[in-house]
Amino acid sequence: MLLERIDSPADLKRLATSDLPQLAEEIRHFLIQKLSATGGHLAPNLGVVELTLALHYFYDSPSDKLIFDVGHQAYVHKILTGRKGRFDTLRQKDGLCGFVKRNESEHDVWEAGHSSTSLSAAMGMAIARDLKGGSNRVIAIIGDGALTGGMALEALNHIGHEKSKLTVILNDNEMSIAPNVGALHNYLGKVRSDKTYRKAKDELDWLLRKVPAIGGKLAKTAERVKDSLKYMITPDGMLFEEFGLHYIGPVDGHDVNKLLETLKHAESVQGPVLVHVLTTKGKGYSPAEADSHKWHGGGPYKIESGQMLKPVGPPMYTEVFGNVLIELAEKDERIVAVTPAMPGGSGLLPFAERFPNRMFDVGIAEQHAATMSSALAMEGMKPVFAVYSTFLQRAYDQVVHDICRQNLNVIFAIDRAGFVGADGETHHGVYDIAFLRHIPNIVLMMPKDENELRNMMKTAVDYNDGPIAIRYPRVQGTGVAFDAEPTPIPLGTWETVREGDYAAIIAIGPMVQAAEEAAELLKREGLNVRVINARFIKPLDEAMLSSLAKERLPLLVLEEGSTLGGLGSSILEYYALNGIFGMTVRLAGVPDHFVEHASVKEQRAEAGLTPDAVAQQIRETVVRKRQHAT
Amino acid sequence: MLLERIDSPADLKRLATSDLPQLAEEIRHFLIQKLSATGGHLAPNLGVVELTLALHYFYDSPSDKLIFDVGHQAYVHKILTGRKGRFDTLRQKDGLCGFVKRNESEHDVWEAGHSSTSLSAAMGMAIARDLKGGSNRVIAIIGDGALTGGMALEALNHIGHEKSKLTVILNDNEMSIAPNVGALHNYLGKVRSDKTYRKAKDELDWLLRKVPAIGGKLAKTAERVKDSLKYMITPDGMLFEEFGLHYIGPVDGHDVNKLLETLKHAESVQGPVLVHVLTTKGKGYSPAEADSHKWHGGGPYKIESGQMLKPVGPPMYTEVFGNVLIELAEKDERIVAVTPAMPGGSGLLPFAERFPNRMFDVGIAEQHAATMSSALAMEGMKPVFAVYSTFLQRAYDQVVHDICRQNLNVIFAIDRAGFVGADGETHHGVYDIAFLRHIPNIVLMMPKDENELRNMMKTAVDYNDGPIAIRYPRVQGTGVAFDAEPTPIPLGTWETVREGDYAAIIAIGPMVQAAEEAAELLKREGLNVRVINARFIKPLDEAMLSSLAKERLPLLVLEEGSTLGGLGSSILEYYALNGIFGMTVRLAGVPDHFVEHASVKEQRAEAGLTPDAVAQQIRETVVRKRQHAT
Repeated sequence: MLLERIDSPADLKRLATSDLPQLAEEIRHFLIQKLSATGGHLAPNLGVVELTLALHYFYDSPSDKLIFDVGHQAYVHKILTGRKGRFDTLRQKDGLCGFVKRNESEHDVWEAGHSSTSLSAAMGMAIARDLKGGSNRVIAIIGDGALTGGMALEALNHIGHEKSKLTVILNDNEMSIAPNVGALHNYLGKVRSDKTYRKAKDELDWLLRKVPAIGGKLAKTAERVKDSLKYMITPDGMLFEEFGLHYIGPVDGHDVNKLLETLKHAESVQGPVLVHVLTTKGKGYSPAEADSHKWHGGGPYKIESGQMLKPVGPPMYTEVFGNVLIELAEKDERIVAVTPAMPGGSGLLPFAERFPNRMFDVGIAEQHAATMSSALAMEGMKPVFAVYSTFLQRAYDQVVHDICRQNLNVIFAIDRAGFVGADGETHHGVYDIAFLRHIPNIVLMMPKDENELRNMMKTAVDYNDGPIAIRYPRVQGTGVAFDAEPTPIPLGTWETVREGDYAAIIAIGPMVQAAEEAAELLKREGLNVRVINARFIKPLDEAMLSSLAKERLPLLVLEEGSTLGGLGSSILEYYALNGIFGMTVRLAGVPDHFVEHASVKEQRAEAGLTPDAVAQQIRETVVRKRQHAT
Repeated sequence: MLLERIDSPADLKRLATSDLPQLAEEIRHFLIQKLSATGGHLAPNLGVVELTLALHYFYDSPSDKLIFDVGHQAYVHKILTGRKGRFDTLRQKDGLCGFVKRNESEHDVWEAGHSSTSLSAAMGMAIARDLKGGSNRVIAIIGDGALTGGMALEALNHIGHEKSKLTVILNDNEMSIAPNVGALHNYLGKVRSDKTYRKAKDELDWLLRKVPAIGGKLAKTAERVKDSLKYMITPDGMLFEEFGLHYIGPVDGHDVNKLLETLKHAESVQGPVLVHVLTTKGKGYSPAEADSHKWHGGGPYKIESGQMLKPVGPPMYTEVFGNVLIELAEKDERIVAVTPAMPGGSGLLPFAERFPNRMFDVGIAEQHAATMSSALAMEGMKPVFAVYSTFLQRAYDQVVHDICRQNLNVIFAIDRAGFVGADGETHHGVYDIAFLRHIPNIVLMMPKDENELRNMMKTAVDYNDGPIAIRYPRVQGTGVAFDAEPTPIPLGTWETVREGDYAAIIAIGPMVQAAEEAAELLKREGLNVRVINARFIKPLDEAMLSSLAKERLPLLVLEEGSTLGGLGSSILEYYALNGIFGMTVRLAGVPDHFVEHASVKEQRAEAGLTPDAVAQQIRETVVRKRQHAT
């Protein structure tokens, strides 16, 4: 076993290059074994085994900066940098992070979880190096999917302009998470596979070699043509050449020796260079090779059968959303779905199958997705922009400037709202309330269960006065029965789900259930606590808030989102703006720091969002309120 | 006068094409005259006179959709669509908007103020048309500067993939607001001017025409080469062809008849087409042609001399920022400046002159600018990311995910915080507090005057514990004297600028002065009101808040920013989170709707941010508080 001997890049460099293919096989075996128990991003990492070996063999990390875009394809990098012993804890609380993580290793120089940041990072590091007179190498490893993200293209434009020395490794596996879309993808496909295209280049070379023999004016012209065509006739990578990068490739990303050769060649080039590497996602594990979309990331599985172990019980909110969307779209032709490269993760695959013409996967391009949705709405469609809360952050300006300012009927289906568990701090959906609710014109809802999600979808489709958003969590529903027909919910109305006059908990989403459990605990102590489902985060139920003020009931606002700028904050503002003083309002939400990977349950516990913690806050509140009254 | 007869596109179409050049001249004269009194975006509009005439002559607005990117170059469009009589009110309260505005005309189909949205809008409108079986044309008019914005590139990628029929007019004036940067710009320059490049194409054509005459194997190969090279040998516009758009151009954008011919040609093309139009910003007014950067947008001027009428009095905050940055950078080599295409607007031109190697204009690319800054910080530099508040919205995710999550020493210089006056609702900087303060690790400050801005810059440069932001307004300073040396301000400390025990106003930025004036008004009524300069929005001065709670002083929080999620909200949260109940806190800030163009003074009055309104709130608060107490 070679892998046993590898605990650092230095160990790796001690191997002969001829040993590397064997090491690659051992690493594949290791990944398939380990991830079958922990889950994780299997397919992306199986795709970059040889590439990562080549990078660590050729470059000198950490003085040379290896910047992994997205950061979920760095498992091999972690194995090679002394962390293979921690893979049993992958993505678990206090365990190995599923992404690049600076506090784990000096070799982790750039963290990410969102895509398309690596080129900007590389540009910054290259500039800093040049200003400081350093000589280290800077290498960004980016997938073809991530390359369509606007910020990567912005960076490409700047890199080609600035001309600092850096290397972009384009890891082209023809996939982002879902099969890739977009003109750039088609372009890469052409480079990858079009034999005519490459043959034409060869034949032109041949032709131009022949022509001079003819002599005379023709020959002279041919010479000039050859000279001036040098930079024209580079169809492979022409696009990157036009962006100002030197293009090398494509090269087989599973041939480690060819990769080493190519990196050496790249090193000899002045200025920025792009190495086009062809890899196969899921390489070496046949179920993952066959369906790399499904195997992008996920839970534990049985190695032999490739069977994924699925949670039992009620459906995920995501799945319910996808089904309801079909149900509503059957009756309303205006409905179209827009996704930024997440058709599977957003539960839209059944919709895409049923309505292929009404489904728009725009690639990793949240900004474009949002603004395109607003234009669809302007022309009378009902676009449903399905997006994870954390990725909607990318389209904040478009939500403000294009959608809400123009007050257009865009429906936001915001998945992964709240804690997301194993993906950790880069992926939580805990800021969307804070970054959306201050925007004029928007309606923002969150359902307490999957039946309410269905009714909210109906509410959204029926609503014609501007943008409307539904946020729902990355968890299973409660198993509640569905109403016979989806029924719209009156705008800005809350629901009292449990009576009580000792105090009231105002909660949203899965926190309504936590509040009910807390109320149950308190009931045993003789304290009857009211529970209110604040299904509209904006607009608030002002009638209810006003009536609560008249009752002088102490309130606890409970939300799985940032306490700063959250629902609780909006209730405080309501009272302040309306000159209602003296209310006792407490806040329970996500604290003001980034919460690391763990299970959703553990993350909620860390944030004090358990029934026990909530009950304790109620006890304290009322006690404190009495003290204040005396 | 032809212009007198034109009040609609139908009137325009009645003219002979031979009349159009004269009309263009009349429109230029009209613009130069009108804008000399009102100010406005002169140079961009002078550049698109013929182009706009051609568009309205050829297409049928509003059934054909003319989508102007950024929307500040639509003055000619406004003239042609019945609004020429309103130009005396341009950019004034209740007057003609400086941007495309849907409530002004049915011909205004897409609003913008931020750049790079037009391609996404066009894609959405084209898809909607296709789904509805319509036949209208969709035309996006986008500048070469705006094309480098990430979302435009995302859209280009999707347009080339989707293949819907639409026309992109690339208005190439070699400028965004500042001279353009980036590889795309260089590329366009090559297409524009490189004779060798075009000659090579011609010569290859000639060569290949000759070769078949030679006969035999050579001829056959030549044929094959010609066939397969068709799409290779199109250096003009190759980049766009590779993105999947048919490229036409470049065409002289000041030759209206050539433009009409070209639009006709474009119309005959299947699928998406890009027309590359060359224009001169400021065309026809020599001061503006000579310095189109300066004449991009601005105030009134003297026509003959081209002298701009400048405000008298203290310097703008922007200018102070630029000077202080140089002062600090002289002593600290780590300081570098990053701007997304706003070197002038951000006051960075003197810095760029003094430290050309430490100045990075990345083009219209806020996302890249932010993340590149974080990488610079990671490598030990002190990047100062200078950006308007409204454009920082584009980089919200990068601020969360790359800068704050990694807790890097990026300094944000957030200009145009608060109301911006004539630019209106797309440009106000009224959300940055709400979208920044909930992000962990960030420090957020606002100075009450230009001397404090200088001290805050020093504070930021000395701070090494993470990201730190200074927001300042688009107004003149107060004329205060500067300290001898810039002095850091202790983190999270507020300043009592006026004593009083009747109530306290907690204010930031220019609102501190408004608060002092309000206090002065109240003093005449015998009410002594304390005024606190809350120079740190995050972290709060908890000691002072706690001491205010002990005093039970009624508070009014005064800020030129969204009331929802603002400083006031954060003070309410502080008390709620710390179990301090019974405080009387009122909020004065920007209400929950978009505020239209007017002067800053008028906008403040509309939002209730005048000394009178503030004094009135204080009177009411205390009265109400007494009522509550009884």
